[in-house]
Amino acid sequence: MNIKDIKSPADIRNLSVSELRLLCHDLREALLHKLSVHGGHIGPNLGMVEAAVALHYVFDTPKDKIVFDVSHQTYVHKMLTGRINAFLDEAHYDDVTGYTNPGESEYDLFTIGHTSTAVSLAGGLAKARDLRGGSENVVALVGDGSLSGGEAFEGLDFGATLDSNFIVVVNDNDMSIAENHGGLYESLRQLRETDGQSEPNYFKSLGFDYKYVAYGNDVDELIKAFEGVKDIKHPVVVHINTQKGKGYAPAEADRETFHYGSPFDIPTGHPTHIDETPDYGDVTARHLLQMMHKDSTVAAITAGTPGVFGFDPERRKQAGNQFIDVGIAEQEAVALASGMAKGGAKPFFGVVSSFVQRAYDQLSQDVAINNTPVVIGLFYATMYGMNDVTHLGWFDIALISNIPGFVYLAPTCKEEYLAMLDWAMAQNEHPVAIRIPGTAVVETGRTFPTDYSDLNKYSIDRRGKDMAIIGAGAFYGLGEKVVAMLVEKGFEPTLINPRYLSGVDEDLLRDLEKDHRLVVTLEDGVLDGGFGEKIAGFYGLTPMKVKCYGLRKEFADRYDYGALAEANRLNPSLITEDIERILSEK
Amino acid sequence: MNIKDIKSPADIRNLSVSELRLLCHDLREALLHKLSVHGGHIGPNLGMVEAAVALHYVFDTPKDKIVFDVSHQTYVHKMLTGRINAFLDEAHYDDVTGYTNPGESEYDLFTIGHTSTAVSLAGGLAKARDLRGGSENVVALVGDGSLSGGEAFEGLDFGATLDSNFIVVVNDNDMSIAENHGGLYESLRQLRETDGQSEPNYFKSLGFDYKYVAYGNDVDELIKAFEGVKDIKHPVVVHINTQKGKGYAPAEADRETFHYGSPFDIPTGHPTHIDETPDYGDVTARHLLQMMHKDSTVAAITAGTPGVFGFDPERRKQAGNQFIDVGIAEQEAVALASGMAKGGAKPFFGVVSSFVQRAYDQLSQDVAINNTPVVIGLFYATMYGMNDVTHLGWFDIALISNIPGFVYLAPTCKEEYLAMLDWAMAQNEHPVAIRIPGTAVVETGRTFPTDYSDLNKYSIDRRGKDMAIIGAGAFYGLGEKVVAMLVEKGFEPTLINPRYLSGVDEDLLRDLEKDHRLVVTLEDGVLDGGFGEKIAGFYGLTPMKVKCYGLRKEFADRYDYGALAEANRLNPSLITEDIERILSEK
Repeated sequence: MNIKDIKSPADIRNLSVSELRLLCHDLREALLHKLSVHGGHIGPNLGMVEAAVALHYVFDTPKDKIVFDVSHQTYVHKMLTGRINAFLDEAHYDDVTGYTNPGESEYDLFTIGHTSTAVSLAGGLAKARDLRGGSENVVALVGDGSLSGGEAFEGLDFGATLDSNFIVVVNDNDMSIAENHGGLYESLRQLRETDGQSEPNYFKSLGFDYKYVAYGNDVDELIKAFEGVKDIKHPVVVHINTQKGKGYAPAEADRETFHYGSPFDIPTGHPTHIDETPDYGDVTARHLLQMMHKDSTVAAITAGTPGVFGFDPERRKQAGNQFIDVGIAEQEAVALASGMAKGGAKPFFGVVSSFVQRAYDQLSQDVAINNTPVVIGLFYATMYGMNDVTHLGWFDIALISNIPGFVYLAPTCKEEYLAMLDWAMAQNEHPVAIRIPGTAVVETGRTFPTDYSDLNKYSIDRRGKDMAIIGAGAFYGLGEKVVAMLVEKGFEPTLINPRYLSGVDEDLLRDLEKDHRLVVTLEDGVLDGGFGEKIAGFYGLTPMKVKCYGLRKEFADRYDYGALAEANRLNPSLITEDIERILSEK
Repeated sequence: MNIKDIKSPADIRNLSVSELRLLCHDLREALLHKLSVHGGHIGPNLGMVEAAVALHYVFDTPKDKIVFDVSHQTYVHKMLTGRINAFLDEAHYDDVTGYTNPGESEYDLFTIGHTSTAVSLAGGLAKARDLRGGSENVVALVGDGSLSGGEAFEGLDFGATLDSNFIVVVNDNDMSIAENHGGLYESLRQLRETDGQSEPNYFKSLGFDYKYVAYGNDVDELIKAFEGVKDIKHPVVVHINTQKGKGYAPAEADRETFHYGSPFDIPTGHPTHIDETPDYGDVTARHLLQMMHKDSTVAAITAGTPGVFGFDPERRKQAGNQFIDVGIAEQEAVALASGMAKGGAKPFFGVVSSFVQRAYDQLSQDVAINNTPVVIGLFYATMYGMNDVTHLGWFDIALISNIPGFVYLAPTCKEEYLAMLDWAMAQNEHPVAIRIPGTAVVETGRTFPTDYSDLNKYSIDRRGKDMAIIGAGAFYGLGEKVVAMLVEKGFEPTLINPRYLSGVDEDLLRDLEKDHRLVVTLEDGVLDGGFGEKIAGFYGLTPMKVKCYGLRKEFADRYDYGALAEANRLNPSLITEDIERILSEK
């Protein structure tokens, strides 16, 4: 059949095996073309073509439920479920998100973007089905990399106790984003090498029945396996061995680079546009490698995302045993860092803002209560970073700055970042988190203090009167622009770099009361529970007016950066306009 | 030897096996006496007598490091490490905390109170040792119940990759606080029944070497096992089978009741004082059971702490498959609830405030982004609840109220709680969390609205002028007292029950501006990121004065309730005094 005619999975259920093989070929060609023009998760989707076809061929979707972990491997699932046009027509490429999305299709059960959740969510569907007296199949599809997250373990441990249909498909391509790390992966390797026969078997140890499929890119073999477990009345794991990047040689050869990528040239695999803009990840890795060279107890920790802070395979090799990948396990990364700091090492955990959320309890209990001097670098902590609803870098200020004992620093440029990083790694007094500006590297050539141990001392970079602008972190630049506009209009604004998100400089704020009527705060995150509210709370009993700028509390999805900024009045002209109006009132 | 002469573990290392047996007997007697007078974790500590002795006998503590999971089983460890007096002399019983505490002793590595962290923390100590070039043994002791938490899995998965000494002692007493839940426990049972020989073996599947000790309350057998792994150069699990409550018949017979308890009569095991005060857990279980009876899709979920919301064994039996214990796995509990709600069931997750912290990401991603109508009841969310630093119920307002989409309700009394609970369980529009007042049940006989779908509408319970008191949840009563005092002094205060912690009633607050000069907020939690700051932020540009009462951001340990209240001016007289002063200024 012509793939453009696929309206729903029902359209493929009458095909013969040879027709299905042809279908897989055509789907993969179309997918590769879109990926080469549009970018996206390349390897995971190329590897899942046959499994997606086989799942929808065998199971009676949408009555039967399939929950995809992370859901970054669902492009073919989308092609089969009424959304083929978004993969064939360039004008419609952006009609679909990169993840499952119930707003798009009844075949998508949840909006998912973080790892290791699918088994738990599907377990809930299965339990609800049992309470309702339903009989549909419930399937969770989870990658081998995602198994390293604690939530996946918890989901399996519970799921195994269901006395009913529960099918977990483990899509094992022997890779996470980078290579896998964890003791589990040696036993998975043995299972692959023994056609699923070896002991110990992790899934059986948790109480699952177990089936192995050696050729997870053979649609016929997959169909037989899925038919064998359809309508089964107990929990079963179907372990399928797939190839990441299957069918596209460059992606098969360099699986880490092709996990996710921007547009590329199909014949060579080379990116169409090479982004040479320096980024803070690169800055961080270079700096840490220098530190590691001088001090063998300095270590960098990642939870399965080494590229986030510049540790490509070559740099990981250079770092040797001073680079630690714990798997996609943020809880472990934070607790491990605390143990290492207690044991006399100097750990730096580099993590995406949205992913550190998984380790709140560890930040509080394992680190802050124990006051271990770990250093945590938060990347993509900005409204100008990832704009998928599951990856927003907006919430970390409220999350971290309100934990007692954590020093949460907000550098405004590269020079200040490195000064803060040097101090954080050298000191032994506090847990420190650094909110690395989420935007492009800003180099100012300025020099900054080398000591941040006198906590919560803000810097007045320009002393004026009437109004003070406190520009935190990446929004310091916004503050500079507002100040420039105000100066042009004849005002004499004060400009403050607060440096600390986790506390209030009471002396400085009190001093402003002498000759200021308005304090404006600017933060690159949600206002609720954030930095500005602390300033507003401080001035609650004084005549000082306080206006806080940041994002309103909401989940936005694939938003336009400029439109979101405008909606929250986050641009210099709007802010300047507001300030003028406020000052003119009484 | 006389146990009162134990100054350090060195004092027991020259004893013979028969002397050690005698020592264990005497330690257990002393422990039981203290427990009967003082209360505490009874079962876990009685079961650990021999293991604590054997660990300190074999390992060269404090050079060798032992990290205890949860650390509620460390009473004998404390007796052996310079703190025996706190177990023998009633006047000194409270010299020690119920958990490990580095402030007490160099033998205590971390302050620990949440489960499933020890393997991760010890892994960090081991990794730091390797980077430093040290050679000490690193031991983590973890209970079977704690293995159900994802962080323990993550810790094992990483720990197995250490190419060096790493010893995990699994203290398996076949119990969590209540019975264990999870597929893992069947394979642990098989290991116990086959003297450690059965496959599948969970620990081996993660890459650990494995040893089994059948009689984990035999000090000689334990010593031999620990000597066998001391100085080992790879990761090993020593699985010891102990008996919870060992040596005290009532605790052996009723292991759930004797997990933790208040003082009791040794001959009978009966509690010395029976607390008949009704509590919100009891109220909750009764109410949910009624709902379950009417609707088979209503379900109660616990993460290993069913007693928190009144589900004793008899009620769990009544609830049948509508009661779900996922193990000590808050991430799973929240994600499962989301899946269940999506699948058409009505889940209620009852959880301790301090423990819900482990599921922030799931509250945000699995629930809020998906807008699934789960209901979460937070217990002990108060400064008047558990006062161990690891169990503070102070942080949940900042944690939950700032997640977009979550409706966080704060009932002020039993009647309002049940009205809110009924609404939350019946509606399908929002995820709802309810901050159940942490203090004793307050019955007012008042009637409350049955519909809370018009979000963020506060209730004005008394309309006055000049000053408004907003008393949230459990602190509404404090607000009433303040109002009474103010009235007595001739003021006409307004009293507001905000009902919602997750939003601001803008219309109502704006209306107050007409004839009020001061708004006072009262919340039973940390101010930073909390409720009051939202009110202060709202009024930032107006002349309205705002004064927020709550707790300052800190970790307090075993504090005196009255003293902490006083330090934060949380009593009616102090607040009234403040209000008079503020109103008299200009």
